Amino acid sequence: MIRVLLVHDACLERSVLAEWLDREPGLAVDDTPWRNAAARIRSLSPDVCAADLACVDGHGTPPIGELSPARNGGRPPALVVLAHANRPGLLKRAAEAGALGFVDKAGSPDRLVHAIRSVAVRERFVDASLGFGFLKAAQMPLTRRELSVLSLAAGGASIAEIAGSLHLSHGTVRNYMASITRKTGARNRIDAIRISRGEGWL
Amino acid sequence: MIRVLLVHDACLERSVLAEWLDREPGLAVDDTPWRNAAARIRSLSPDVCAADLACVDGHGTPPIGELSPARNGGRPPALVVLAHANRPGLLKRAAEAGALGFVDKAGSPDRLVHAIRSVAVRERFVDASLGFGFLKAAQMPLTRRELSVLSLAAGGASIAEIAGSLHLSHGTVRNYMASITRKTGARNRIDAIRISRGEGWL
Repeated sequence: MIRVLLVHDACLERSVLAEWLDREPGLAVDDTPWRNAAARIRSLSPDVCAADLACVDGHGTPPIGELSPARNGGRPPALVVLAHANRPGLLKRAAEAGALGFVDKAGSPDRLVHAIRSVAVRERFVDASLGFGFLKAAQMPLTRRELSVLSLAAGGASIAEIAGSLHLSHGTVRNYMASITRKTGARNRIDAIRISRGEGWL
Repeated sequence: MIRVLLVHDACLERSVLAEWLDREPGLAVDDTPWRNAAARIRSLSPDVCAADLACVDGHGTPPIGELSPARNGGRPPALVVLAHANRPGLLKRAAEAGALGFVDKAGSPDRLVHAIRSVAVRERFVDASLGFGFLKAAQMPLTRRELSVLSLAAGGASIAEIAGSLHLSHGTVRNYMASITRKTGARNRIDAIRISRGEGWL
């Protein structure tokens, strides 16, 4: 029996998907929203954690790092993520968090069952249709520091506030913003945020 | 028999939800992504259209207006939407598009079945948990013109580009941006976009 924890923020879809998965022979399924995921992994010790990356409240990015096998000692669950090919930054983060399975949400739900069975025996599973997303993720142009600056700006912080948060001078923050705008091919800061969010980098 | 068209962008969840709904006595369910929704309404003439507002590609807003009963003459479908309480602007748009049913995605899938049966006999169905969202939607502070300006800014357009698109002077666009920033309680333009998107106004 493979014990699965399904992580998804919309209760309506989560319930139906968990019920559907639970009917599969050999799968026993629990489910949770993102905010309780780390605690449920610790209490349930599932074999597989299947997590939806699409949206937390329709925008923002889910705390994938908290599901990381590296963070959950003992016998950590194998991680499968449900993703869209057009959010390559999220795919990259999931890979960094140690995900073994990558299922395209544009595909059939049967693919999720295949992925769960694969990662349960520690075999990688990657939907071919996510390939282009991975290619784009490999080309992510921003450094970690640039992402920190852009993330604060996207939260509405001023140059002075960003400088204060990251212990940088105003001039350095302006240089980072200019570099981010150039590297993302954006017309201005708002455009850089729009592009980076669209790619799932933010 | 109530013929239902389920509109949802993620094939994986859509398939499972459509299959689940189709098992309900008296419901016959077809499903489609948003991009084909209007065409499917015309070809299938469903009794009810149940549309997910949560996310198109994880961001942006769905073209609710295209599902509007007013746009689909003859015998238009009754419209149910699946929504989050924290996107009040989307609730408002759905109400303007003539939706009769409002189902909270944070609730049980059984609520969707109740909503479908209610609107099929042209009775209103509103999840109580969406009440706060409606209250906030009623307080949406921006005018249509301000929303147009903000929407172009959010797309990365410069003041000059916005002025060109809307046939306004640069000074008028700057005045609109200042008014938007003030009305949304934002610190700056980026913050105004962030707040408005969070509320589902954009």
